Amino acid sequence: MKTRLLLLTLAVTTSLISANADTTKVKPNLDGIELPENYKDWKVISASHRLDNKSMRIILGNDIAIKAARYQQTNPWPEGTILGKLVWKQKAEENWPTAIAPDEFVHAEFMIKDSKKYKKNGTGWGWARWLGKDQKPYGDDKDLNQSCIACHTPVKGRDWVYSTPVSLP
Amino acid sequence: MKTRLLLLTLAVTTSLISANADTTKVKPNLDGIELPENYKDWKVISASHRLDNKSMRIILGNDIAIKAARYQQTNPWPEGTILGKLVWKQKAEENWPTAIAPDEFVHAEFMIKDSKKYKKNGTGWGWARWLGKDQKPYGDDKDLNQSCIACHTPVKGRDWVYSTPVSLP
Repeated sequence: MKTRLLLLTLAVTTSLISANADTTKVKPNLDGIELPENYKDWKVISASHRLDNKSMRIILGNDIAIKAARYQQTNPWPEGTILGKLVWKQKAEENWPTAIAPDEFVHAEFMIKDSKKYKKNGTGWGWARWLGKDQKPYGDDKDLNQSCIACHTPVKGRDWVYSTPVSLP
Repeated sequence: MKTRLLLLTLAVTTSLISANADTTKVKPNLDGIELPENYKDWKVISASHRLDNKSMRIILGNDIAIKAARYQQTNPWPEGTILGKLVWKQKAEENWPTAIAPDEFVHAEFMIKDSKKYKKNGTGWGWARWLGKDQKPYGDDKDLNQSCIACHTPVKGRDWVYSTPVSLP
């Protein structure tokens, strides 16, 4: 009886811990880029709804990014900027079906501005993505960040960034 | 010449000040509700794209709201919760035309949970909206918050809130 209770307690404790990804160490990507700390607490840069792949996105920025956005000094973004794009599958809002809202979490992507450190990839940004709720680092030897860079090449003239910070009062 | 220079300086200074609504005092609404301080710095609850009226929305929350969202304790939301919904007209993303992004700022709306203070309107929430970049308080004697409440009545069973906090790792 005591053993069963102990096993049950252990099982519950383990599931509580594994349900919270913050308590487990997320692996860096192959470039050695670590998942930025506290990114979920960053302030808002913008949002977007991609009709082509049916996803909703919220773009956040660290304090350097937010300051640059509010002073409209974003081309180039200042050294130390980190932009995070959180992506969800889309769904119809349960009680307002003509509105689209975020559903299942897909991944979190980051652009980290450090012109010296990331000079070699030709952009001055570090690129990284962590997949799903278990935040598995994206990329392998064949494609670590080349698909990110290829996709962002059309906005090279906007310092490689698609999003325009939202207009605020 | 000196007078002209002075007038020019004055004009430039005035336009710089008026361009930043933070430096001017925003009026409370007829209910006496003040624009929540620093709401632009709050953390993210969700986002939505309303296809029916072609608008993009980002929903933010004060610290009490964010804590409740992350612990999934949102029915009811705790006393002291403030939810802010920032609304923009939609536009196609300049360099990715199949994505929809925020354009011109429309208004900021707030729900303020205080069951005692707002018992009289039957919801336990204070309702307020400030229009446009000059943040003009919305509402008059004929309709201060009745249109807000009417619109939210279908979600009375969700403590009057449409948005579900985003799923995060």
